[in-house]
Amino acid sequence: MEPSTSGFPPASAANAKLSMKPSTLLSPVPVVLVSCGGTQPGERPNLITIAWAGTVCSEPPMLSISVRPERHSYELIRSSGEFVVNVPTERHARAVDWCGVVSGRDEDKFAKAGLTPGKALHLRTPIVLECPINIECKVRQTLELGSHVMFVAEVVGIQVSQSLMTPLNRLALEQAGLLAYAHGHYYVLGRQLDHFGFSVRKKPVETPRGGRPPKRKETRA
Amino acid sequence: MEPSTSGFPPASAANAKLSMKPSTLLSPVPVVLVSCGGTQPGERPNLITIAWAGTVCSEPPMLSISVRPERHSYELIRSSGEFVVNVPTERHARAVDWCGVVSGRDEDKFAKAGLTPGKALHLRTPIVLECPINIECKVRQTLELGSHVMFVAEVVGIQVSQSLMTPLNRLALEQAGLLAYAHGHYYVLGRQLDHFGFSVRKKPVETPRGGRPPKRKETRA
Repeated sequence: MEPSTSGFPPASAANAKLSMKPSTLLSPVPVVLVSCGGTQPGERPNLITIAWAGTVCSEPPMLSISVRPERHSYELIRSSGEFVVNVPTERHARAVDWCGVVSGRDEDKFAKAGLTPGKALHLRTPIVLECPINIECKVRQTLELGSHVMFVAEVVGIQVSQSLMTPLNRLALEQAGLLAYAHGHYYVLGRQLDHFGFSVRKKPVETPRGGRPPKRKETRA
Repeated sequence: MEPSTSGFPPASAANAKLSMKPSTLLSPVPVVLVSCGGTQPGERPNLITIAWAGTVCSEPPMLSISVRPERHSYELIRSSGEFVVNVPTERHARAVDWCGVVSGRDEDKFAKAGLTPGKALHLRTPIVLECPINIECKVRQTLELGSHVMFVAEVVGIQVSQSLMTPLNRLALEQAGLLAYAHGHYYVLGRQLDHFGFSVRKKPVETPRGGRPPKRKETRA
């Protein structure tokens, strides 16, 4: 084997790499139903499926979605300055896909997808009642990046489905059957692993029977 | 049942909602090992785990990561203007968690996490050889949002592990065991569902035996 001249160890066969052309390969990413519009008298609310979405700030809580400016939803979000990120589940997979390929200029997507507009807490835009998580957002910044415009938005309200709450009032997200998107395919979120901070968790302290378990580390991103 | 006065249908019991305080609940989100630094003589490269990441544009391909400015990696990315998003798998879960809770000011995180720096195609920042996808990024915009600073970056190169390529040269991402993050927990990506566009797929045309199947719709986000 040739000695490395780059300062890096030579790759073993197990780590051999191929180069690919630059693309949107980051995986998995969320896939969400964004509701928008319906904020003016007579304006029909719309739905658009977005995979170019992510959390971008903890305090204040902010997320971003990126939308092609030729989409009908772009103008609705641009003019109202608000939208709702509705987190779908496996049972909504067909509606999610369909809302990503047809235009709300031509269709009443709520009606045709069999989804129900519900009242938001702080916005005029409706939420999607059937989705277990509804995140109400107000646009704070708009960035033109190329094919897509990024809306950077603050989370101003959240509703969750009561059916996902445990008797101890924990949000049992692992039972929701959430979707994700990777490299052109939808996936169901699989097995839950450990919690954030598990690698530095203290070993359980020996306590008398019935003693308290050690407190969990708080989640931080 | 009371008639709705809001213009929305009343929620059925199945769709009953609870309100929660605004937070970073968008789920699932990616969880990636970002490598940075090592671009100046004598500078030790670093790793930081990021869940506040997402694709933000298709043309040019761009993604964003958000970093707290007090993190050691923040200065490394800020001064070099580049980083690599390394997509980990279930087998890296402990390293991923650990790189999210300790600081590279104190530790050689590559060495302690048992990860190998490898040569990038277009950057001086090293990739993580063990991760099946390595996305090389150049920072184009920096947004101060609050607790986090968002780096909006262009994808300038990608390497993938040869072991994930099928004999027909397809990237078999469904075999990688990718991770995701949701509400304080890590998850393994589960079952692959259908591809983007499946809801409007034409039914297979009757063809003579051996005839070509209909061409798949191209993926578009």
